[in-house]
Parts: sequence; structure tokens; C-alpha cells
Amino acid sequence: PDWEVVDEHHLRRKFRFGNFREALDFVNRVGELAEEQNHHPDICFGWGRVEITVFTHKIDGLTESDFIFAAKVDNL
Amino acid sequence: PDWEVVDEHHLRRKFRFGNFREALDFVNRVGELAEEQNHHPDICFGWGRVEITVFTHKIDGLTESDFIFAAKVDNL
Repeated sequence: PDWEVVDEHHLRRKFRFGNFREALDFVNRVGELAEEQNHHPDICFGWGRVEITVFTHKIDGLTESDFIFAAKVDNL
Repeated sequence: PDWEVVDEHHLRRKFRFGNFREALDFVNRVGELAEEQNHHPDICFGWGRVEITVFTHKIDGLTESDFIFAAKVDNL
């Protein structure tokens, strides 16, 4: 499962992990990327799972920055 | 706004912060508490906000552990 385009409004991808700690570590990598890129996703996570939602708040929809951010998340 | 009991199933509380970094730092404090207590909430966050949802997966509802966890989050 890769990134989905949802409602032509945001990108969403779900990631699975073996425990809570691994999920939290991934959240931190995404968080550091967000600060570095100054592009901040919504992140929901729990034991063994992380869901990332990306869109551009300024236009309440998708821009090139969102696709770039998504690609960078894949490379974490 | 304090903890809400939602659907007699889980506890939920929303927290506000001045930026993404402060939200991420709080998420990490909650994450460390979760590992320490071996009680893992669902956490959703973004720029300036964190929402914590707590319930006991084993019974798919609320137990004393959830209220204890919520009180500990308030003391972070």
C-alpha cells in the first residue's frame, strides 16, 4: 500500500511496525523532516502503526510540496 | 477542556501548543510514559495540537488503567 490521494484533497499513507517504540521512532523521523521542510503533516499513531496525512493548509488542498514531502517520507 | 469520556468507550483530551516542535515534544513525553506504563494510547497530532485517546484494547473499553494513564499525562 502506497500513498492514496483522498478526496482530491490530501495524501495518506499507513505504515506498520512491530511495536510502539518503532512507530514512535518513525514519527520522530517524520517530525524532523517536517521541521526541515517547513511542511507539517497530520500524524496519527498507536501501537505498531502510523498514518500520515499531507496537504497544503494555505490552499486546503494538494500542491507539489505535498508530493515532494510524501516522497521524502518514503526515503526515511 | 479536560478529558472527555467518549461513548463510554475511551478517554480523549486535546492539547494546544504554539508550534509543531512543542507538539512533537509533548508526543514524545506521552510516548515515553506509554512505554513506561506499558499502556499505549492513540495519538493524533499536527501543527500546534495533540489529541490523545486512551482505552484498554483487551476489553475494548475503559478500565482503571486508562484513568491512571490520563492523570499521568496531565502531570507531564
